[in-house]
Amino acid sequence: MLKPDFAKGNGLVPAIVQDQASGEVLMLAYMNEQAFEQTMQTGQAHYYSRSRDTLWHKGGTSGHVQMVKSIRLDCDADTVLLIVEQVGQAACHKGYRSCFYRQITDSGVTYCSEKIFDPQEVYG
Amino acid sequence: MLKPDFAKGNGLVPAIVQDQASGEVLMLAYMNEQAFEQTMQTGQAHYYSRSRDTLWHKGGTSGHVQMVKSIRLDCDADTVLLIVEQVGQAACHKGYRSCFYRQITDSGVTYCSEKIFDPQEVYG
Repeated sequence: MLKPDFAKGNGLVPAIVQDQASGEVLMLAYMNEQAFEQTMQTGQAHYYSRSRDTLWHKGGTSGHVQMVKSIRLDCDADTVLLIVEQVGQAACHKGYRSCFYRQITDSGVTYCSEKIFDPQEVYG
Repeated sequence: MLKPDFAKGNGLVPAIVQDQASGEVLMLAYMNEQAFEQTMQTGQAHYYSRSRDTLWHKGGTSGHVQMVKSIRLDCDADTVLLIVEQVGQAACHKGYRSCFYRQITDSGVTYCSEKIFDPQEVYG
C-alpha cells in the first residue's frame, strides 16, 4: 500500500489543498500518520496542528469541512496533494477563498483571492 | 516589504508550484532567503535543495526552467505559491507533467498526470 513517507519529516508531511471546482490552491497544512488515516477513512480532510500539537478536523466546529475528492502523492512520497470541495467556500480564517490571497510584485502587494466573509463579523 | 517568514522553518519555507496554463499543481520544493531573492530578481524559480544542501536553479542545466508569473504568500507567511510557465512541459524527473502523478484510492494506485518523456531515454 502506497503511503506518505512520514519518517523523512519527523512524522509530518506537508499537504497542499486544491479546490476541485476552481483549481485554486487553497492552503497548505501538515499531516501526521493519524491525520492521513482519518482523511482516508472519513473522506474529510484532517491535519496535524503544529501550533496546538493535536489532530485537527478542518471545519469540524464550523461545518466548513473539506470533502476530499482525490488524494495524490508526489514522486518521492514526502508531500500530499488533496483535491477537495470546500464547504462554505472560504478555506482561510481571514475570510478569503484561499490562504494565498496576497501577491508580491515589484511595486508592492496586490490581493488575488476572493473575500467570502468578514472575519470580524464571524469571529469578532 | 512583505516577505516569507524564514525563521519559522529553520531558514526554509515550502514553495508550491502551480502551472499557469492548466492549473495543475506541479511540485513542492523549499526556498531559503537566497532562493526567494534569486526568484524575485530573475523571474525564474530557484529553490534550496535539501538533499544537496545548495541553491538550485530549477532547469538551469536542461533549459527546462520555470518562468514565474506570480509569487503569492499565505496568511501566516510561512508558505509560498509560485504560478509558473513550465518550459519543456514536465516538472517531474520521472517524466510526468506533475510530480503528483499517483492517486491513492481504496482499491489501489491510479495515475493522474500526463507522461511527457521517458526518463530512461533522457537520463539513461
